Amino acid sequence: MIVTPQSMHFAEALALQSGASIRGYALAYETYGTLNADKSNAVLICHALNASHHVAGSYEGQERSEGWWDSMIGPGKPVDTDRFFVIGVNNLGSCFGSTGPMHVNPDTGRIYGADFPVVTVEDWVHAQARLLDRLGIQSLAAVMGGSLGGMQALSWTLQYPERVRHAVVVASAPNLTAENIAFNEVARRAIVTDPDFHGGHFYEHGVIPKRGLRIARMIGHITYLSDDVMNEKFGRQLREGIEAGGDAAAGAPRKRSVGEYLYTTQDVEFQIESYLRYQGDKFSEYFDANTYLLITRALDYFDPARRHNGNLAKALAPATAHFLLVSFLTDWRFAPRRSREIVKALLDNRRDVSYAEIDAPHGHDAFLLEDARYLGVVRSYFDRIGKEVSTDGPPLGAKAHSGGSAAGLPANVGATSQ
Amino acid sequence: MIVTPQSMHFAEALALQSGASIRGYALAYETYGTLNADKSNAVLICHALNASHHVAGSYEGQERSEGWWDSMIGPGKPVDTDRFFVIGVNNLGSCFGSTGPMHVNPDTGRIYGADFPVVTVEDWVHAQARLLDRLGIQSLAAVMGGSLGGMQALSWTLQYPERVRHAVVVASAPNLTAENIAFNEVARRAIVTDPDFHGGHFYEHGVIPKRGLRIARMIGHITYLSDDVMNEKFGRQLREGIEAGGDAAAGAPRKRSVGEYLYTTQDVEFQIESYLRYQGDKFSEYFDANTYLLITRALDYFDPARRHNGNLAKALAPATAHFLLVSFLTDWRFAPRRSREIVKALLDNRRDVSYAEIDAPHGHDAFLLEDARYLGVVRSYFDRIGKEVSTDGPPLGAKAHSGGSAAGLPANVGATSQ
Repeated sequence: MIVTPQSMHFAEALALQSGASIRGYALAYETYGTLNADKSNAVLICHALNASHHVAGSYEGQERSEGWWDSMIGPGKPVDTDRFFVIGVNNLGSCFGSTGPMHVNPDTGRIYGADFPVVTVEDWVHAQARLLDRLGIQSLAAVMGGSLGGMQALSWTLQYPERVRHAVVVASAPNLTAENIAFNEVARRAIVTDPDFHGGHFYEHGVIPKRGLRIARMIGHITYLSDDVMNEKFGRQLREGIEAGGDAAAGAPRKRSVGEYLYTTQDVEFQIESYLRYQGDKFSEYFDANTYLLITRALDYFDPARRHNGNLAKALAPATAHFLLVSFLTDWRFAPRRSREIVKALLDNRRDVSYAEIDAPHGHDAFLLEDARYLGVVRSYFDRIGKEVSTDGPPLGAKAHSGGSAAGLPANVGATSQ
Repeated sequence: MIVTPQSMHFAEALALQSGASIRGYALAYETYGTLNADKSNAVLICHALNASHHVAGSYEGQERSEGWWDSMIGPGKPVDTDRFFVIGVNNLGSCFGSTGPMHVNPDTGRIYGADFPVVTVEDWVHAQARLLDRLGIQSLAAVMGGSLGGMQALSWTLQYPERVRHAVVVASAPNLTAENIAFNEVARRAIVTDPDFHGGHFYEHGVIPKRGLRIARMIGHITYLSDDVMNEKFGRQLREGIEAGGDAAAGAPRKRSVGEYLYTTQDVEFQIESYLRYQGDKFSEYFDANTYLLITRALDYFDPARRHNGNLAKALAPATAHFLLVSFLTDWRFAPRRSREIVKALLDNRRDVSYAEIDAPHGHDAFLLEDARYLGVVRSYFDRIGKEVSTDGPPLGAKAHSGGSAAGLPANVGATSQ
């Protein structure tokens, strides 16, 4: 499936939860499949920390450009784009296409930097709702997301209950624990105290706080994986390729006798160190430091029960959607018990809830990976949704799969083809 | 119990596991109680990452100067200094008194810095054995430690089986998991990539890599605590003392309405953030960056089963001591299953092992805290050891509790008084 990113500009100001507002912003998005005549087959996908509107498919002429949930979404896949019109949207504050801290503030003419307004899950949902308005979509067959994306899906059912028929909330939580916040805070401190951060205005200095971003990503990676999968993948293996007499890695500072320690405090000794350093380096090349602060803060702030004295059942009372929740047994970041809190609160409200705990070994990362049981659960849930959706083709006047302009929709909507 | 730190100088070189050696070094130590006539009541305490020879008692005229295991060791305490002669020793490479990276290398006349040799648990045990030689102690009634200290206690039973009658190994592990190493590596990278680290030779530049040390300590603290105790102590509480109209903390940059978020990515919002920042700041004031690298590497390297293809039972075959192992149910850093690996390997060798899993909520930190069940287990084990030890007073010619010089011992040994 070849896809094309698009962008929608919003001139009018969006009021934010903090009391601030933002105007003249753009949202990047992609769509897959075709909107049907009664516009009842739209599925919105919300992304997590390190992701974007590029959810599925590939870009023309770009190898390995599959979207981050390409195993889940596409023609014949669990969320079947032959049946559903799927929308991926990049959130405000991101560094992947929507307006973010690296863009110019129209009120000042200067790059936002650290002055980009603090955005919350609720703000993102409002912005997504405006995008749907412009796409002419009143009601979603489903909203779906994993991790922070799951928080957005849950929030949709509270902020716009009448616009959501199903919510699919994967590997998520009703709020962060103190430990979750703690990990976010250490990552933020690493970024903010990097001398190249310059109070968040590093763009003007022509530098990037890469040291801090590397540390942030390394911490993140540890929390995404399970202890078991780390032991299985890396265990206590020593770094490869630097045995004396073997093929030394380029620039490897020292060589080891087979199976011997190098006895070093600063060089890589174990494979897990090599892996984490690589992940950190890669991340620091493409991720924006201010975006990292904004998105981890949105995670920290999400807490629908907060205005109900911690009573989640009360907080979820407005939700009328049907729910599928999925968690993974080895996920210690957003553990199954956190999903069960949501399930219980929904059941207390006599809502329709399906819930699956998947015995996958991969920890939090499992929500992005191919696991037959996991994909099967989502497939059968979307089969059920599909039965409620008419299959009578695209809206009148629109050309399906053609890149043409649909009636009442801006050019390019539904223009992605397979 | 008022105690006095002491120091022992070692002129002759100590061969290290890495192949390097170190000469002209000093070990700081303290002793509590009195060595009996047949020198059979000596107990060696090994310390973990952020600790020293100051295990118990207080320093004259210094309030709040209790040793780090003062709840465990002292007159009438589980390790009863009325009965046992207890020795606390600071390890090589530390920043608390023994020779470390901040001292001058006698071979070069320059401060060691990053050139301080890599030291292992095995090296520390050899150095401790030399100290005991100089104190005239051939055999230990017990060697005891928690966490990294427990690794040293275990290693004693392998390196000097004939010198150890009992080993008490608390909240420890037979080696680090990939996840453990990963957390250590992130902390080390934060330190090493701090521009003030200067490749480990920051002393000459008159600076300290405090940014890195703060991050390292924050990460450490998260792993020392359980998720539950963090939630109980901090939960999602907002930082106190900055409500508008209330007593604002000095320098607090913003005030909040009661219960409202500040909406900030760089200021403290949650109590847990305030706690971690405070811990990080405090640590960066007193801990040495090179010491942090050395000690975390010693943790990474410890792995007695390594030379036995991972077969821990084979690795522990030389141990002839009696063992007490203790673990804590909420310790996810050195989880009970890691202690059970040691127990099983010892039982495979038909060794005498006692094992207790304590249902304490505090995570890894529990080994330093007062818990009646935990202290009770250790007390009854030491009661048993006490019955094997003669109680016939100090060695001939020595004055007990007097600060005098014991026959064949250097001045001040056994000089601590209550």
